[in-house]
Amino acid sequence: MTTVTTLVSELGAVVGAANVHLPELGELEDGTRWSGVRGTADAVVRPSDAQGVADAVRWCYDHDVAMTVRGGGTGLSGGAVPDGGVVISMERLNKVRTLDPEWWRCEVEAGVTTAELQRRVREVGLRYPPDPGSAASSHIGGNLATNAGGPHAFGHGVTRAWVLGLEAVLAPGELVTIGGPTRKDVAGYDLTSLLVGSEGTLGVITAAWLRLIPPPTAEQLVIGLFPSVDAAQDGIAGALTCGAVPVSVELLDGGALQDAGATLPVPGAASEWASLPDPTGAVLLFANLEGDLVEATAARGDALVDAWREAGATWTAVPEPATASALGEWRANISGAVAARRGGKLSEDVAVPTDRLAELLRGSEAIAAAHGLEHAAWGHAGDGNMHCTYLFDPTDQARLDRANAAADDLFGLAISLGGTVSGEHGLGRLKTGYLRAQWDPAAVAAHEAIKAALDPKGLFNPGRKTP
Amino acid sequence: MTTVTTLVSELGAVVGAANVHLPELGELEDGTRWSGVRGTADAVVRPSDAQGVADAVRWCYDHDVAMTVRGGGTGLSGGAVPDGGVVISMERLNKVRTLDPEWWRCEVEAGVTTAELQRRVREVGLRYPPDPGSAASSHIGGNLATNAGGPHAFGHGVTRAWVLGLEAVLAPGELVTIGGPTRKDVAGYDLTSLLVGSEGTLGVITAAWLRLIPPPTAEQLVIGLFPSVDAAQDGIAGALTCGAVPVSVELLDGGALQDAGATLPVPGAASEWASLPDPTGAVLLFANLEGDLVEATAARGDALVDAWREAGATWTAVPEPATASALGEWRANISGAVAARRGGKLSEDVAVPTDRLAELLRGSEAIAAAHGLEHAAWGHAGDGNMHCTYLFDPTDQARLDRANAAADDLFGLAISLGGTVSGEHGLGRLKTGYLRAQWDPAAVAAHEAIKAALDPKGLFNPGRKTP
Repeated sequence: MTTVTTLVSELGAVVGAANVHLPELGELEDGTRWSGVRGTADAVVRPSDAQGVADAVRWCYDHDVAMTVRGGGTGLSGGAVPDGGVVISMERLNKVRTLDPEWWRCEVEAGVTTAELQRRVREVGLRYPPDPGSAASSHIGGNLATNAGGPHAFGHGVTRAWVLGLEAVLAPGELVTIGGPTRKDVAGYDLTSLLVGSEGTLGVITAAWLRLIPPPTAEQLVIGLFPSVDAAQDGIAGALTCGAVPVSVELLDGGALQDAGATLPVPGAASEWASLPDPTGAVLLFANLEGDLVEATAARGDALVDAWREAGATWTAVPEPATASALGEWRANISGAVAARRGGKLSEDVAVPTDRLAELLRGSEAIAAAHGLEHAAWGHAGDGNMHCTYLFDPTDQARLDRANAAADDLFGLAISLGGTVSGEHGLGRLKTGYLRAQWDPAAVAAHEAIKAALDPKGLFNPGRKTP
Repeated sequence: MTTVTTLVSELGAVVGAANVHLPELGELEDGTRWSGVRGTADAVVRPSDAQGVADAVRWCYDHDVAMTVRGGGTGLSGGAVPDGGVVISMERLNKVRTLDPEWWRCEVEAGVTTAELQRRVREVGLRYPPDPGSAASSHIGGNLATNAGGPHAFGHGVTRAWVLGLEAVLAPGELVTIGGPTRKDVAGYDLTSLLVGSEGTLGVITAAWLRLIPPPTAEQLVIGLFPSVDAAQDGIAGALTCGAVPVSVELLDGGALQDAGATLPVPGAASEWASLPDPTGAVLLFANLEGDLVEATAARGDALVDAWREAGATWTAVPEPATASALGEWRANISGAVAARRGGKLSEDVAVPTDRLAELLRGSEAIAAAHGLEHAAWGHAGDGNMHCTYLFDPTDQARLDRANAAADDLFGLAISLGGTVSGEHGLGRLKTGYLRAQWDPAAVAAHEAIKAALDPKGLFNPGRKTP
């Protein structure tokens, strides 16, 4: 057994003493800190480059020391919460190595924040479409490790759709590149897609080549209020069939509207809703359209309004572009607004086939009621991916237990509807064991065989993404 | 050792005697038959459903019998050419199980042809964008196994981008579903992407859930003739930076134009080119634009013409929509037109970073010259994915040997330019061993570990996709 002191000094001898320190509290938690999740670790390594990551991994692999890879620490399933061993922090791998606007691509290190990449890309007139929450703090490496989604995943795909190639450290400490700036490559198995979304359990992604595209020249936002989840479900179908072709379709149910509806950045909206008959169970949808011409895109917006009125919308709005950016900020704050109601929340990111969304929302509400909890849901309606949320006072352990029981029921519901326990956050430490309920045993066995093949000692982020 | 007679009768007892037959010649070849590639097999199984595939796989796995999975037989790297054992033909798994236009998705069996799927989807007002060559005969299962590309992969992504979930048979004969109609799922490793493009070496895909989208309401084709590969390279950069945002950018070099240029379905084009000074080394680019409005899309076409004129185009055209479909057919026949010149050709689908395309084209021509062969190249310029082709008389073994030597040099060139030996056809049997030249040893080791983990007996399509 290696003591902490010898671990720090031996590891420091390999990667540089200045690159190893004893963990600080913030390095033992992630986006789950609100619910009191905190881990332990013996040391934190902060390599300054990819070879430093490889050196750290090799030392840990040689010495049977577990590793937890840390990005921006914004994850919502405990993926970055260590359980002993060494934390490998990617924060110093923060370079945009290349940015080629002429060829719609860039090469970025894992520790670049999502917002920084988006800003750099915007400055050269292009766009990196993935837009997960917490972009200001989340790292591209974390986006890759979890295959992060976001509102525009509906039209533009999740993170994986934008990855051309990876640089990564595989066991027992080998720095490899898989692909690169080439846009098409079928020579080998798709190890890129295998590493993306593997939550650091198969290796450590140190950099990626990403695809970029030009931004749309016109955008139009459309908002609709529906009297029920069933009417909203008709509204989603209407959005897909009316010819407007949205790139995102987002939803807030009545519970989320209770906390966030009054601050919707559309003048007068909340008071107008108040005058509508029977606001109980109201659901808000909002969709983004992208196009070439302002007039044509606005015309598609009108088509969407017609479709939503036909689906039963009681209120609609087609705001000016300035509102769209305010709405994006409002959208990003929904989670906080809902959490503020009781101080604590358990929010799970299940996804179902889009035509089962109303059943999911009704079922999640019934689950909350059965456990005596308040409920809210919001999320990526076009992708059938909801943040179903159970509220509680964080000082009330009994209600936290009930929220966990409710989440368990929710996972069962999502699976029974043909869906998944996680649409975008990943399994992390908190959803360990649920894949087995979702997949056939032989598929689970294949999953485990791949883990064993690429991480035979089980040292990469142990306890995460285990079936 | 099992004799052929006992193999046929034992296998027939498991999957039904009517579903097993002795191989016919056409079942021992694929799209490489022109170069005389033909395999051997002891029996062909034609299961009528997915469980029948599982039963056949289980019998083969139990009896250590190698399997070759056969789709439409249009592959260009020998992937469907058996080397003994049993051929599992997917032709009877030809049902479109579900087609949900309202939710932009379908579930299709592996034996449905690409063209049939495209037709069915078109009939309900939607679109399945992947457009690999040989769509009339190729199966969706083959498209999935090779992660097929095509011209519109530039704007819409390769086959993998359209797969929501898979039904597949894993060793030793387990029928599993991974994902389904749900659009986002990060619960497990991305086994879907791992199976897609694995060329049947990790299991047998029996069905897939695919994403669909509405078709564009407007399209515009733009064609430009350039005096050299360097000017064409500038033209590609111009297409990416002029704001026109094409969904495909295709190229024919001087060699391909020699065989196919005269039949370009634009009235007068060939005679107009003849009047241009110095046609040596001319290169044709053509791009598709998609948009909401005919006028706006045409305006983007004009912007592209301007960009191409600035890049040195000596001739341009913006044909009517009727021409676009004729051009699609003409495009599909380029391969045959080039092959007809000498009767035989070796065509390899290397891909490089798009900014290295001119170097690839010049280098491939120099390789042809060094081996005393005629040369032609065409393909997906926007993706840097070329079909570099060496022509020969198929009765001349010495020239066939030289073509193979030229292909070997070409692979080395593509890798030295940061590219891949295969952009869309796969390794099959003919490119066995080349991945090792392209990937780091540790990445190759991971590739082999995955194969061993999922196919421990090495019975799924042995000899394909081996590093």
